[in-house]
Amino acid sequence: MSGETEAVNAKMEDLKVGETSQASEQNNAAEDGDKEDVVDPWTVATSSSKGIDYDKLIVRFGSTKIDDALLERFEKITGHKPHHFLRRGIFFSQRDLHLILTRYEAKKPFFLYTGSRGPSSTSMHVGHLIPFIFTKWLQDVFDVPLVIQLTDDEKFLWKDLKAEEANKLAYENAKDIIALGFDVNKTFIFSDMNYIASCPEFYRNMLKVQKCVTYNQVKGIFGFGDSDCIGKISFPAVQASPSFSNSFPAIFGTKKDIPCLIPCAIDQDPYFRMTRDVAPRLGYPKPALIHSTFFPALQGAQTKMSASDPNSSIFLTDTPKQIKTKINKYAFSGGGTSVEEHREKGGNCDVDIAYQYLTFFLEDDDRLAEFKEEYSSGRMLTGEIKKELITILQKMVAEIQERRKTVTSDLLKEFMTPRKLNCQS
Amino acid sequence: MSGETEAVNAKMEDLKVGETSQASEQNNAAEDGDKEDVVDPWTVATSSSKGIDYDKLIVRFGSTKIDDALLERFEKITGHKPHHFLRRGIFFSQRDLHLILTRYEAKKPFFLYTGSRGPSSTSMHVGHLIPFIFTKWLQDVFDVPLVIQLTDDEKFLWKDLKAEEANKLAYENAKDIIALGFDVNKTFIFSDMNYIASCPEFYRNMLKVQKCVTYNQVKGIFGFGDSDCIGKISFPAVQASPSFSNSFPAIFGTKKDIPCLIPCAIDQDPYFRMTRDVAPRLGYPKPALIHSTFFPALQGAQTKMSASDPNSSIFLTDTPKQIKTKINKYAFSGGGTSVEEHREKGGNCDVDIAYQYLTFFLEDDDRLAEFKEEYSSGRMLTGEIKKELITILQKMVAEIQERRKTVTSDLLKEFMTPRKLNCQS
Repeated sequence: MSGETEAVNAKMEDLKVGETSQASEQNNAAEDGDKEDVVDPWTVATSSSKGIDYDKLIVRFGSTKIDDALLERFEKITGHKPHHFLRRGIFFSQRDLHLILTRYEAKKPFFLYTGSRGPSSTSMHVGHLIPFIFTKWLQDVFDVPLVIQLTDDEKFLWKDLKAEEANKLAYENAKDIIALGFDVNKTFIFSDMNYIASCPEFYRNMLKVQKCVTYNQVKGIFGFGDSDCIGKISFPAVQASPSFSNSFPAIFGTKKDIPCLIPCAIDQDPYFRMTRDVAPRLGYPKPALIHSTFFPALQGAQTKMSASDPNSSIFLTDTPKQIKTKINKYAFSGGGTSVEEHREKGGNCDVDIAYQYLTFFLEDDDRLAEFKEEYSSGRMLTGEIKKELITILQKMVAEIQERRKTVTSDLLKEFMTPRKLNCQS
Repeated sequence: MSGETEAVNAKMEDLKVGETSQASEQNNAAEDGDKEDVVDPWTVATSSSKGIDYDKLIVRFGSTKIDDALLERFEKITGHKPHHFLRRGIFFSQRDLHLILTRYEAKKPFFLYTGSRGPSSTSMHVGHLIPFIFTKWLQDVFDVPLVIQLTDDEKFLWKDLKAEEANKLAYENAKDIIALGFDVNKTFIFSDMNYIASCPEFYRNMLKVQKCVTYNQVKGIFGFGDSDCIGKISFPAVQASPSFSNSFPAIFGTKKDIPCLIPCAIDQDPYFRMTRDVAPRLGYPKPALIHSTFFPALQGAQTKMSASDPNSSIFLTDTPKQIKTKINKYAFSGGGTSVEEHREKGGNCDVDIAYQYLTFFLEDDDRLAEFKEEYSSGRMLTGEIKKELITILQKMVAEIQERRKTVTSDLLKEFMTPRKLNCQS
């Protein structure tokens, strides 16, 4: 049967991967050069204290910057002022967002898909919340179905975790996510380990993606090597499959032509570049994307936060006192080395973590502008701007903790049961 | 997170694959030499008209020949005379069969697992029956649970077939298999596409195997290349998983220590060499194996039959007339070129396909010996030995066709529903 195998392979090779090969070539070119940022689903690294150069990243990835014209169109069509994440360039890049707005305008259905590569500890940190906070807002604006994927299988494959532990963590993470206020009538949350083992349509879509993508391609896109396990190598198909509406027969029946919009941090883009290349070959619409910047670690913007270092971030389980201590002790300061120097030269908001976190969590544009002015001028001290952040984070985390207590096992079960969702569109 | 990824990779590399690396090295060595037989799950090729050199294959694969002592032990422990497939060396090689006999003797549980890589056409050919006929006999002898895997996912990945078509074919093949007389109280038949999407325990075992096996390893064992799709690369985990009893919670509950015996053609051994290497690392017993030779094509023993060439074999859908015509027209003859030459020199049973097929389908040892004697001496003509085979195959195929008619959709559904099985052990 080797002849047939070879024929199939030859056919695979003929199907050039457009978006991905372009991006990976640029990626390689960048890596050959000096000190380019590294951004893929497992590594985000830069040598700049200001963090990743996102303008360069957009060019390398081949996505499109979210500009004022798009934000104006968004507001005009939805009647909603863009979220402060959009206004402040935290969600800064997109693919086909215009098409989604056009569908919304024409009252054609679409859905939201987001996910959590999830922490390997039981609790999520505030950085994990960014895509979920934004997705919840999009759900409120668009009133469309939302599917949330918890990749417990991926956690198992990548981490030193047992399958059973990874699966349990998915349920803990689901509670954190529910505590952000998602509407159970419009949201389906699933763990891969459970949902794949309950939905033939999902497994078939996994197989269809797996048949379209070669080892060479995942090597180029994700940097997998020959000593990686075969679970990692085939995993991208699992992350691709929720992009297709017929992966959710309980929600969409047999419809395969409903596109999705995926809010995610830009390090997840490689998965969806691959998905967008594969989709037309399977007769499915390409997923649209809206990308965020990375949430910086307390220690500075050079890296993403790590769930495995408790001092690198604020966790949803932290007490008010822990939040206060961590921020005062670990949050990288852009202020002067002494009060005198700070008063004289002012603080640097571009690298100051307290200020950076405020851009994420302080909604009020005027107050944020005031803090920037006061801190940059040196009138506001590091301790003072940290105090503002501490107050906001203590309140936010406490509220989530309160709401989490109300997440009963019945409610969790309801969110995680495949079912019809009730949305306008 | 690249550090963690690398750490996991390094760990994987440390876990040397014993049986597989040994076998693949020997395989490579063999391929460097001249004109060795090629045997893997997709290719069986030899330049010898007598077919594959099985003695050499045993050495290369590192399995053990089934010898008289083992057959004696089998008869002593089970109280059954070994099946003619065993007596005639059709099932000729094994791994750990002694351990299974010891368990049977000690009344400890084990189960049978076999499968069909299945035809890409709707009907199976008589060559496909060999492992099933033998497995049914083993089931009668041992009275243990039997699981039969139909790899519709594999067919989809390897062939030019739609997922839905491959899944439908699995059900057609299941009817053929049921028509061989399996006991519904002791047998569970499943299609991968359906069962994986219904059993979390199975998917978890797939993931566990996928985490233990690197691309390098499947490259060595199966000869996969960089332009193979990621579905093929991860598929071996799907074929490995039914070897583990906790993949079938409806049958075995949470028990993970019940070993299986796998009857299969020896080209499937690479899958289970891999499985045997992985099993101890997962805390599971290694599957035992019993290997058959290949069923030759009508045209001769150089290759396996091909389901895609209707004249290369006898199909379960063939009419008595088709069977007669195909054997008379296509079955390679070891007889003389003229009646005179045949009478003088006799026929060569080693290459004569009619005689070869009789070794599979004529149970009576005495008659077979008589035919060999008569044909070799030239007293029996090619047309006469073919006539004996035609009669046997017409009867066997007609009986299967009759029984297949009685396979109702209810019965099919029962066989394919995960449930408790009723066996002695």
